[in-house]
Amino acid sequence: MSAHAHFADRIVLRARALGHPLCAGVDPHLAQIPPLFRRGDMALAAPATAAAVRDFCLAFVTRAAPRAVCLKPQSAFFEQLGPAGVAVLADVLIAARDADCPVILDAKRGDIGSTAEAYAQAYLDRDASMPADALTVNPYLGLDSLTPFAERARNAGRGLFVLVKTSNAGSGDFQDQPIDSAPLFEFVARALAPLAKELQGPTTNWSSLGVVVGATYPEQAEQVRQRLPHSLFLIPGYGAQGGAAADSVRSFVPGPAGLEGGIVNSSRGVLFPPAASSAQHAADWERAIDEALDRACQELGEAVGG
Amino acid sequence: MSAHAHFADRIVLRARALGHPLCAGVDPHLAQIPPLFRRGDMALAAPATAAAVRDFCLAFVTRAAPRAVCLKPQSAFFEQLGPAGVAVLADVLIAARDADCPVILDAKRGDIGSTAEAYAQAYLDRDASMPADALTVNPYLGLDSLTPFAERARNAGRGLFVLVKTSNAGSGDFQDQPIDSAPLFEFVARALAPLAKELQGPTTNWSSLGVVVGATYPEQAEQVRQRLPHSLFLIPGYGAQGGAAADSVRSFVPGPAGLEGGIVNSSRGVLFPPAASSAQHAADWERAIDEALDRACQELGEAVGG
Repeated sequence: MSAHAHFADRIVLRARALGHPLCAGVDPHLAQIPPLFRRGDMALAAPATAAAVRDFCLAFVTRAAPRAVCLKPQSAFFEQLGPAGVAVLADVLIAARDADCPVILDAKRGDIGSTAEAYAQAYLDRDASMPADALTVNPYLGLDSLTPFAERARNAGRGLFVLVKTSNAGSGDFQDQPIDSAPLFEFVARALAPLAKELQGPTTNWSSLGVVVGATYPEQAEQVRQRLPHSLFLIPGYGAQGGAAADSVRSFVPGPAGLEGGIVNSSRGVLFPPAASSAQHAADWERAIDEALDRACQELGEAVGG
Repeated sequence: MSAHAHFADRIVLRARALGHPLCAGVDPHLAQIPPLFRRGDMALAAPATAAAVRDFCLAFVTRAAPRAVCLKPQSAFFEQLGPAGVAVLADVLIAARDADCPVILDAKRGDIGSTAEAYAQAYLDRDASMPADALTVNPYLGLDSLTPFAERARNAGRGLFVLVKTSNAGSGDFQDQPIDSAPLFEFVARALAPLAKELQGPTTNWSSLGVVVGATYPEQAEQVRQRLPHSLFLIPGYGAQGGAAADSVRSFVPGPAGLEGGIVNSSRGVLFPPAASSAQHAADWERAIDEALDRACQELGEAVGG
């Protein structure tokens, strides 16, 4: 499928074809990179460290790209390695694109005016040197801060996922505070509705303006769904953060191939399964990763009843 | 002064010594890089473009580091150039450090758990490959998302500036919504107060937990000041965005050398003054930049009555 197709259409058609909503996180926590890939003392600034992370991530992309609906690299773990790490992130983004697997860069950017425009150029333009299909963004700065990202959704087949209700324990500090008797996160969801409607896809009706809603808050996810009936939910917190598969898809709705309406992220569960971390040979590591991915696909596939 | 000194103490003592609160923004908008520095067609991904931006930024740092209280590179304009641009950002951060000028990286990061920790490691650790003295961060994810940054403020002499009331027209969409009859931005300020108090400096009493409050909203800045009497305000929007010098310092309070309590950012005004952009020779460009910096220092110095 062309990279210029509507982002949400592309995601949903792929999820229907695969029969599950798995988004595979690419979060290379340094301490967890398996011995098979480690080089030297894995000091943050060592060139060997970036090379090890590159090999590890690209090997994972090879396994995950055909199986997952999309990949989600977490920018922080690459930025942590400095410029060499950002070069590895670029390689990961390009490898996903070459494997024809949609990729969401989890960078949670948010800024205003020409600065927001620069972030959109950096990650969502067709000729971006860090090319992603979608970007996670933070709404605190207001709706005008989303304009450059929405423009790429409109004109370049890109998507954005706006943080609405995050999966952490402290997410309630501000997101749950009442405005006109509804919590802030619901107010944000309501404010996003017109733009979400405008960015619905021609094939599936799903919108390229998606939202992030943690699997740890399934009831809140249902509230957000009422406000944003056509937005894809990017759902972190499944697996390692304690969210169950069934809870993860509580905001999904019936579609032609089971429940649909979002993607469920697993990072540590598929990237660092114990059997992979103790593998002595590449083939053993590959088998363990494949098994972890297939397990997540199956569990989530059962949850959506596809 | 040691880079391990308390961040806010270091900023305030430097502002008192210089007699003004100027923070010089390093926002290399590609289209505005002067002809003197341009190379080739300045395409985003061209190596010559990153080299041109590097020369331009480092030449600016040389002029600004002795004059400004601190420098504030805007990450987006470097990320836009891909990995090569991030390498330029690292060079800028290191050049500022070598010139003993505090540097605030304006990256507006915000994430949770181990991801927030990775951002703190990336930019605020003593051995960070992208070493900054402080980072701008977004509060939407909750107080626990600030923990890794606060820890560096506590233990490594670093600082954080939390977005509270931003300078853009749309900042009211969420930040102005009423919670218990006060706007969200004031609620955020109130929630930050205990941590701000904990991070006060031994010499000046100013806190390494600062906040971002746009110069375009001077009345709101005064409201935030009531909630955060010891927080440094990072004030964007002076000059190009329409905020006047007097408005910019409305939240300042009397100190031993005039009004104090924050830093006022100028980016375009000092980085792209017309006389510098049309300069034919390096010496002319340097003179024009020096004049623009001295003008901003003088205007802001008069505003604080130092």
